[in-house]
Amino acid sequence: MNISIIGLGLLGGSTALALKERLPGVRIIGVDTSRQHAAQALALGIADKILPLTEAVAQSDVVVVAVPVDTIVEMLPQVLDLITDGAVVVDLGSTKECICQVVDSHPRRSRFVAGHPIAGTERSGPVAAFNELLIGKQMIICDRERSDVDALEIIENIFRNRLRMQISYMDGADHDRHIAYVSHLSHISSFALSNTVLAKEKDEQSIFEMAGSGFSSTVRLAKSNPSMWAPIFIQNAQNVSQSLSAYIDELQQFKVWLEEQNEENMYRWMEDANGIRTILSGIHSNEENQA
Amino acid sequence: MNISIIGLGLLGGSTALALKERLPGVRIIGVDTSRQHAAQALALGIADKILPLTEAVAQSDVVVVAVPVDTIVEMLPQVLDLITDGAVVVDLGSTKECICQVVDSHPRRSRFVAGHPIAGTERSGPVAAFNELLIGKQMIICDRERSDVDALEIIENIFRNRLRMQISYMDGADHDRHIAYVSHLSHISSFALSNTVLAKEKDEQSIFEMAGSGFSSTVRLAKSNPSMWAPIFIQNAQNVSQSLSAYIDELQQFKVWLEEQNEENMYRWMEDANGIRTILSGIHSNEENQA
Repeated sequence: MNISIIGLGLLGGSTALALKERLPGVRIIGVDTSRQHAAQALALGIADKILPLTEAVAQSDVVVVAVPVDTIVEMLPQVLDLITDGAVVVDLGSTKECICQVVDSHPRRSRFVAGHPIAGTERSGPVAAFNELLIGKQMIICDRERSDVDALEIIENIFRNRLRMQISYMDGADHDRHIAYVSHLSHISSFALSNTVLAKEKDEQSIFEMAGSGFSSTVRLAKSNPSMWAPIFIQNAQNVSQSLSAYIDELQQFKVWLEEQNEENMYRWMEDANGIRTILSGIHSNEENQA
Repeated sequence: MNISIIGLGLLGGSTALALKERLPGVRIIGVDTSRQHAAQALALGIADKILPLTEAVAQSDVVVVAVPVDTIVEMLPQVLDLITDGAVVVDLGSTKECICQVVDSHPRRSRFVAGHPIAGTERSGPVAAFNELLIGKQMIICDRERSDVDALEIIENIFRNRLRMQISYMDGADHDRHIAYVSHLSHISSFALSNTVLAKEKDEQSIFEMAGSGFSSTVRLAKSNPSMWAPIFIQNAQNVSQSLSAYIDELQQFKVWLEEQNEENMYRWMEDANGIRTILSGIHSNEENQA
């Protein structure tokens, strides 16, 4: 089976490495506009060869589009134009509504499967890729009724049977609404925390001495790649803006109580927040079970 | 050497366990108003015996006060009243100005050392304690000039020589101003993120499926104990409120750019936030070096 991976970064690279380990006989064709990334991907064994987009897609049974979401929107109609009969295209973008819309009336819409693997780290590029990134994680497939049954089967075989991912199905618009809260918002909260602390503390040494593992954990996502995240925020602006309003409201409410020295309300608010324990232990036990 | 640990939670319990491993001949006397915690501490080998406060302090060379900061403020003058000649008291509270103020004119002020170990987890109680928590971490000592030289030596011997902590010195008011940014604020950002998501997503299963390790990391501190954190926020209200204002400003600025679809400014803002990488790698390499 020939699989093209367009975009040899963290997600594309990790998908390629996992497939080479778990899908015997697969040939990975890498596509990347960055020559440096293409060369790194070859050197790291991520891709068997590098080709220009047109040639790669023409030779492929499956095309995995793992580029930033603004590039997906630009590139996806063209990729569908280029595929051979029976081939399937899947994307791995963190937004789904815009991406589905752009191919909504494409004659080959049914050869496309809209995917979003819930996996990532704050690192990027081929050097950040590792073969275990996707294994056992969630993969959300949106608007499945718009894809051919055999196209879905091919994609599910790869992600469920080979990469051991848990597949769930969702409407694209619902996906974007939920993901604004559980992923996009936490990135913004982390970027903002970083900028707040950096603006205040010019003398890095004093932060370094006083910051512990709690700060590291909360601010970790602030290391994420702006080239990936700016287009996500732009595409999901309405949902993200709503989640951000709700978040700012929570912070402002807490600030009022703080200034009133209303310890009782602050206490109850934190107790409510403790409710996330149940959910987090669910996530972790799931990851541990799968790992 | 007899050491009383007042408060047998995560921090007090972990201090006790580390001392028993690294300070031969030490006898740990535990004090806790919770009978359950006292019983757990005995069962877990955290304390050699449990005594009421008065008796414990009367038998001790060193008293470690590891209770929530509101209780420290109430208890500290009384503890200083009760110590024997030559004994030393150290606290482990996350605020320093209020705590130093309450004993400012105490006749035994110089037997007190104001400490803040930069170590913790989101868990609490004796069952959360583990002997490695403090090892190799930072310990900030405030207003050292107010402590006797021999009192400081005893405390530094314990925390630097035995527990291998890096000691740094600071003015109490400066400590509170900085720690609002690098610790207290990240707890609030995390509590608020948890409440925002919980309020929106009544159906826990849908969060569970869509939340990944990035969300877990950012929201981890929302599991922290309100009984510990409410008094910290109250005591450091002015600094925390300032840091919170700056944080809300960052978020509101981002929201404006988001609604304007100003991708360029959003991009630059995230690039600035990436600057935290240098600092975080400093923290991590430090922890790894010491572990």
